[in-house]
Amino acid sequence: MLAALAADDAEWAPVGRPLAALRAGSTQEVSAAVRACARLAVPVVPRGAGTGLSGGANAVDDCLVLDLSRMNRVLSVDPENLLAVVQPGVVNNDLKAAVAEHGLWYPPDPASAPWSTIGGNVATNAGGLCCLKYGVTRDYVLGLEVVTGGPAGEYGTVVRLGRRTTKGVSGYDLTGLYVGSEGTLGVVTEITLRLRPAPRDQPHTVVGAFDGLVAAGRAVALCTARGLQPAALELLDRSCLSAVEEWKHLGIDAEAAALLLARVDGPGEAGVAEAAAVAAAFEEAGALWAERSTDPVEAEALFEARRLAYPALERLGPVLTEDVCVPRSAVPEMLARTEEIGTRHGVHIATIAHAGDGNLHPLLITPPGDEAARAAAQAAFEELLTAAVDLGGTVTGEHGVGLLKRDGMERELGPEVCAMQHAVKASLDPLGLFNPGKAIGEPKL
Amino acid sequence: MLAALAADDAEWAPVGRPLAALRAGSTQEVSAAVRACARLAVPVVPRGAGTGLSGGANAVDDCLVLDLSRMNRVLSVDPENLLAVVQPGVVNNDLKAAVAEHGLWYPPDPASAPWSTIGGNVATNAGGLCCLKYGVTRDYVLGLEVVTGGPAGEYGTVVRLGRRTTKGVSGYDLTGLYVGSEGTLGVVTEITLRLRPAPRDQPHTVVGAFDGLVAAGRAVALCTARGLQPAALELLDRSCLSAVEEWKHLGIDAEAAALLLARVDGPGEAGVAEAAAVAAAFEEAGALWAERSTDPVEAEALFEARRLAYPALERLGPVLTEDVCVPRSAVPEMLARTEEIGTRHGVHIATIAHAGDGNLHPLLITPPGDEAARAAAQAAFEELLTAAVDLGGTVTGEHGVGLLKRDGMERELGPEVCAMQHAVKASLDPLGLFNPGKAIGEPKL
Repeated sequence: MLAALAADDAEWAPVGRPLAALRAGSTQEVSAAVRACARLAVPVVPRGAGTGLSGGANAVDDCLVLDLSRMNRVLSVDPENLLAVVQPGVVNNDLKAAVAEHGLWYPPDPASAPWSTIGGNVATNAGGLCCLKYGVTRDYVLGLEVVTGGPAGEYGTVVRLGRRTTKGVSGYDLTGLYVGSEGTLGVVTEITLRLRPAPRDQPHTVVGAFDGLVAAGRAVALCTARGLQPAALELLDRSCLSAVEEWKHLGIDAEAAALLLARVDGPGEAGVAEAAAVAAAFEEAGALWAERSTDPVEAEALFEARRLAYPALERLGPVLTEDVCVPRSAVPEMLARTEEIGTRHGVHIATIAHAGDGNLHPLLITPPGDEAARAAAQAAFEELLTAAVDLGGTVTGEHGVGLLKRDGMERELGPEVCAMQHAVKASLDPLGLFNPGKAIGEPKL
Repeated sequence: MLAALAADDAEWAPVGRPLAALRAGSTQEVSAAVRACARLAVPVVPRGAGTGLSGGANAVDDCLVLDLSRMNRVLSVDPENLLAVVQPGVVNNDLKAAVAEHGLWYPPDPASAPWSTIGGNVATNAGGLCCLKYGVTRDYVLGLEVVTGGPAGEYGTVVRLGRRTTKGVSGYDLTGLYVGSEGTLGVVTEITLRLRPAPRDQPHTVVGAFDGLVAAGRAVALCTARGLQPAALELLDRSCLSAVEEWKHLGIDAEAAALLLARVDGPGEAGVAEAAAVAAAFEEAGALWAERSTDPVEAEALFEARRLAYPALERLGPVLTEDVCVPRSAVPEMLARTEEIGTRHGVHIATIAHAGDGNLHPLLITPPGDEAARAAAQAAFEELLTAAVDLGGTVTGEHGVGLLKRDGMERELGPEVCAMQHAVKASLDPLGLFNPGKAIGEPKL
């Protein structure tokens, strides 16, 4: 039981041994727990559904695991102001369903949306497929209730950050600072979210097959250069396609080296024209074939395959997940370097990507129990991070630093910026109680 | 000369007496100046064009005014990645023109866009007309170069925050924290901005005339409730319209109690349909008349009138500018309270508003030299702030706290959140050197 709550879905990240776990039912319980932990100097590791891929929710030794998944109520939906107020344990897809009843839409859609919680999405500033056009979690978080400590009062103090209005510049953007901070600055107990009106038109799906990853990358760069704005532009390589097909038999063509999968949701004729333009860009970049469809069943099957790629690959062995993000023009080069690094280290790398964002997920798969393969994968992993930074990118586009990307983050940001981060952390959590060692690593002495 | 650099456009805010001013020409000069100021314990007040409306750029006694308006180069425009890198002194409209040559668009459009600098826009997280659909400055700032001090090293250290990629969660969002911090955490010397493809279609303009402010407010609420997303939805009351008309003779109908001015930029037929839906909402809410147009000359004249409202009213006397933002459903109520407060205090209040955002600018105008009127205006000003907070809103939607909104900000956020802000400030600026007293006020002992 305790062990099940001690780790997230980052199989390669170290897991500590928690002292205890609490499934909190209310802000008051969280507050009381934080107050007690401060008194006893017990670190607090918050968690939601545990679908994280960087180890951000992994226990540290002798901590309290604070499970927020029971705090799963949608507290209000306000169609007049396009807002929802939710507890952190609400599952992303459950929120989507609740607001859809009001003709509204919550866009951020990590592939984990059927399981991951909004609290976890806030902790990692989760992205997903449609952030290409619609932005990431931070773009939708207007306000937070946080159990904090230090300057706000004693540990366990409950504060409200942010606002309910579309705009606001009253003081520092502490809300934005907390989003993506992986629970290292306090425990989020309530979230005020901005919503959008539900889209009115059926989206178009455009699929292109390519004989190589780099050609698919060129198609992505061409779409950007032409000012096309698909809602999603996803890449799956042959390894992903065949892993899904072998598992689920969806009838996907797993022959091509890579598929690009675009969703275009412009209204009416503009959508038709944009879908045609995306297909034309695919063809000009050398697609083997490109097809358009407005059939929702077919589109759903394709995007389902995309969402299933990660679990399908996990069936083959422990997956070490990359999450690099590079400037979009560098996508072909990053894909080429990924192939080269995989070949050189003899590591099986499957790639799925939010290609339109430049956010690539090379997945390093090793046979279970093969320590040499594991060491090779680890070396390839760090080289991929270095390559991304080298191309002007970042080591993590949406999964968060957690434990897995700490070294890469430090290489990316440098010692001065890391020192600034630790200063901010110390100012809001002087005891170092909240999820120590995550997001910004350990302070350098 | 020094006096001209000592104040921004907030006529009612206190102005200190600077020790000296420096028109910095490079990051190196800024760095050297900050280093010297740290050694001498001289506060640093950065400024751009001085178009701020809250006193954020006003000198404090014995400070160095650091004028960044000479650092006005667009360093690069990258159409492949939809990015621009600029110095802080670039004027907003000059940036727009530079990126338009590449078929690109920088959306944030404060009414000061012909004069205000991107650095100032970043300092205040400036909004504008089109943020209803396209977001505010923070949504476009990906990365910053900042001259800082404290934990990053000695004062004068140059750091790079953020990234060049569309997504990224490597460490805390320090970039977002600096945006809107009014120069209180360091001096921004370079900005990496996200751009959009230039719109392809001619926008539609919809104008509605109303016999009262509250009816216009109902029309705004109806547009939101119906999921309509105009790019801009502006309100001007009769005082504004007649002040502009008397000054510029644009031929505007200044008879109505209020005009609503919508810009709709959906593509093709979808745009036509949305313009019709906005006009229908205006009529259902009780408009005297509502008209649609795609004539760019007519549209430009109307939006020009909107941009001129503030300077037109300044001709009548010192203007005390409100910047409250309320949930959109509360716009009619806030407009009603504004009228009531103005009447009760005998203060002439003209209202312009980014009504679609709930961001209202009641402008309090007093006859020059009338101290009693000034005191009445000051009392009305604070009551308006309280009313906005009371309706679930904020004291500042886009102008920033500066000096004018400090009390209101403290009432809005409460002592715990204010203490957190001061802790963050102290962590990044332990000497309290950067623009002391602005944005978050003075620390409470």
